[in-house]
Amino acid sequence: MDEATSPVAARRLRLELVRSRMRELQVDALLLSHGADLPWLTGYRAMPLERLTLLVLPVDDEPVLVVPALEAPRVPDPGCAFRLRPWLDTEDPLDMAEELLRHVRRGRLGISDRAWATTVLGLQERLPEAAFVTASTVTSPLRAVKDAHEIRALRAAAQAADRVAAALQAGAIELVGRTEKAVSDEIAERLVAEGHHKVNFAIVGSGPNGASPHHDAGDRVIGAGDLVVCDFGGELVLPGDDSGYCSDITRTVATGPLSGEAADAYAVLAAAQQAGVAAARVGVAAEDVDRAARKVIEDAGLGERFIHRTGHGIGLEEHEDPYLVAGNTEPLVVGHAFSVEPGIYFPGRYGMRLEDIVVVGPDGPEPLNTVDHQLVVLG
Amino acid sequence: MDEATSPVAARRLRLELVRSRMRELQVDALLLSHGADLPWLTGYRAMPLERLTLLVLPVDDEPVLVVPALEAPRVPDPGCAFRLRPWLDTEDPLDMAEELLRHVRRGRLGISDRAWATTVLGLQERLPEAAFVTASTVTSPLRAVKDAHEIRALRAAAQAADRVAAALQAGAIELVGRTEKAVSDEIAERLVAEGHHKVNFAIVGSGPNGASPHHDAGDRVIGAGDLVVCDFGGELVLPGDDSGYCSDITRTVATGPLSGEAADAYAVLAAAQQAGVAAARVGVAAEDVDRAARKVIEDAGLGERFIHRTGHGIGLEEHEDPYLVAGNTEPLVVGHAFSVEPGIYFPGRYGMRLEDIVVVGPDGPEPLNTVDHQLVVLG
Repeated sequence: MDEATSPVAARRLRLELVRSRMRELQVDALLLSHGADLPWLTGYRAMPLERLTLLVLPVDDEPVLVVPALEAPRVPDPGCAFRLRPWLDTEDPLDMAEELLRHVRRGRLGISDRAWATTVLGLQERLPEAAFVTASTVTSPLRAVKDAHEIRALRAAAQAADRVAAALQAGAIELVGRTEKAVSDEIAERLVAEGHHKVNFAIVGSGPNGASPHHDAGDRVIGAGDLVVCDFGGELVLPGDDSGYCSDITRTVATGPLSGEAADAYAVLAAAQQAGVAAARVGVAAEDVDRAARKVIEDAGLGERFIHRTGHGIGLEEHEDPYLVAGNTEPLVVGHAFSVEPGIYFPGRYGMRLEDIVVVGPDGPEPLNTVDHQLVVLG
Repeated sequence: MDEATSPVAARRLRLELVRSRMRELQVDALLLSHGADLPWLTGYRAMPLERLTLLVLPVDDEPVLVVPALEAPRVPDPGCAFRLRPWLDTEDPLDMAEELLRHVRRGRLGISDRAWATTVLGLQERLPEAAFVTASTVTSPLRAVKDAHEIRALRAAAQAADRVAAALQAGAIELVGRTEKAVSDEIAERLVAEGHHKVNFAIVGSGPNGASPHHDAGDRVIGAGDLVVCDFGGELVLPGDDSGYCSDITRTVATGPLSGEAADAYAVLAAAQQAGVAAARVGVAAEDVDRAARKVIEDAGLGERFIHRTGHGIGLEEHEDPYLVAGNTEPLVVGHAFSVEPGIYFPGRYGMRLEDIVVVGPDGPEPLNTVDHQLVVLG
């Protein structure tokens, strides 16, 4: 990996861009805790626990990572990126943050979108003069545009997920007679076997459960003639990197011949997904990708069966900006990466969804998932 | 399960207790999102994603669950516990929350401790007249006291974790020649095989990595003569229940004869842990359990090697109140459940920790983990 595209070099550049936007938006300091802003800038992710990790990043001063003393040994050598300020269980990390901000202007402070309420309220109490905004005000437009290294990582994750989807479509993952939970567990194992560092979710919704988009794979035994919605993803860390990028794919398979209604609906779904992908071009508003996919489903008289947005950005987080949803007029630029995943749901009966990750390229949409888009009938 | 101890009956009682404390503390409404307050009161846990789930619970009015429309089918039938208010991706759930609070006094509002900053700041913007406090102000003293059903669930989880620890101590989990990661994966698989629904973590810190209390199991190959700290836990759901209670256990094993220094330190550690457990009696301050364990280590001249608190409460969350730490003067009561887990760490060389979950009973401490506390030397 050459220096120009190394994670360290990328982070140095990101820090410059972040400081520049902080000046522009008059944000005096960022306070980064849970979520992806911190690993995106530093390579270190806070543990999802109650002991506070907080990068205090003043616009014009050295950043300091307030970190639980017992987790300090986990922090990779930051080089000159930031200074460490470990705290003991008998100390108060919010008091430390206040102290670190003592000589900083505190007009506007940006706090991680996913920081806990305990942190937000505790900081507000200590810094009553400050106005708090979400850190994404600064970071989101930067994080949403993936660099070449990030796109490589997203592609590797997508290809690993594709291999699991291909096994599903080839019938290598047995469905009929097994519970959704057993199939979900096998998909999770295969995601790891294909190179994922961590599994984020493995939805398996069979028969009527397929109509619940975020169904928890459960005890239902998959039968012959079911439609089965499989939506899964995880994080994959490229060699030499320290941060995982996410995969997210959905394929729907059938365990027997379809009714005419279901086959027709699937043809609509596939056309809608294709229309969404095709619309994902530079300069198009995010909501217009949603519009393109939704129009196909509405024109077929199924508009009310598509009960969610068309997609979400993806990167270090499974869901991040840009969201493909009515009302988001943000124009797409080269490097935006997101899911395109329309669904059609018949409550109490069955459902279907089709999802790829797509990157906006200079010459048009570049789907990272390429496994078969047809409805595969197994058994 | 009789009605008196059924989860539904327990939740009905909790709601009464919560409303009573809200009146006492003059909290006009609770706003429950991420974290365990919501499942503790309703049996439903919000997905850890960006679409907002929020139970709006006014002190004297019907609770309403604001939930993403696509997740509404996941919500178990609440009976009369709350009303559902699903929102579409084109709607704003914070506007809905504001609307639901229109006819409620909004002097003090309690927001989930783990609610995201986006939610807190969005609500503050819409309800500028309200003072926000953490929901734990109301719920924590109630949640910290486990009822008979919760203790059964914690005991079942502890016994499942004990069986994995026993396998480790019996040498059934191979260590030497394998990476920490491989051992961590096997521990995780065994936790599931023993009945856990979900694995929360499986720390394996070998040799010098054992000195990093929250070490991420990595590529280090475990050698002969290493001390290996194994700290693992997950969630176990009892049959007929819908919420998982957590396990958390640490055992340190050796892959060969110990140095005299390490053997001496382990004897101190085991005595410290025993002293902590013995101190866990009704009326004793939480900090005095920490004091009791710490004193043994300090008296042996190793005080500076014990760099964290002695323990944390456990229940629906892996870490919750009460925390056993200097400064926490809360007196223990029957039903408090927490870890007792002193550790001794020699940076760059090795570390050791010993942990059980303990419930405060009417006649004294009741350890839920009972697997061997001695340092087992394998191989």
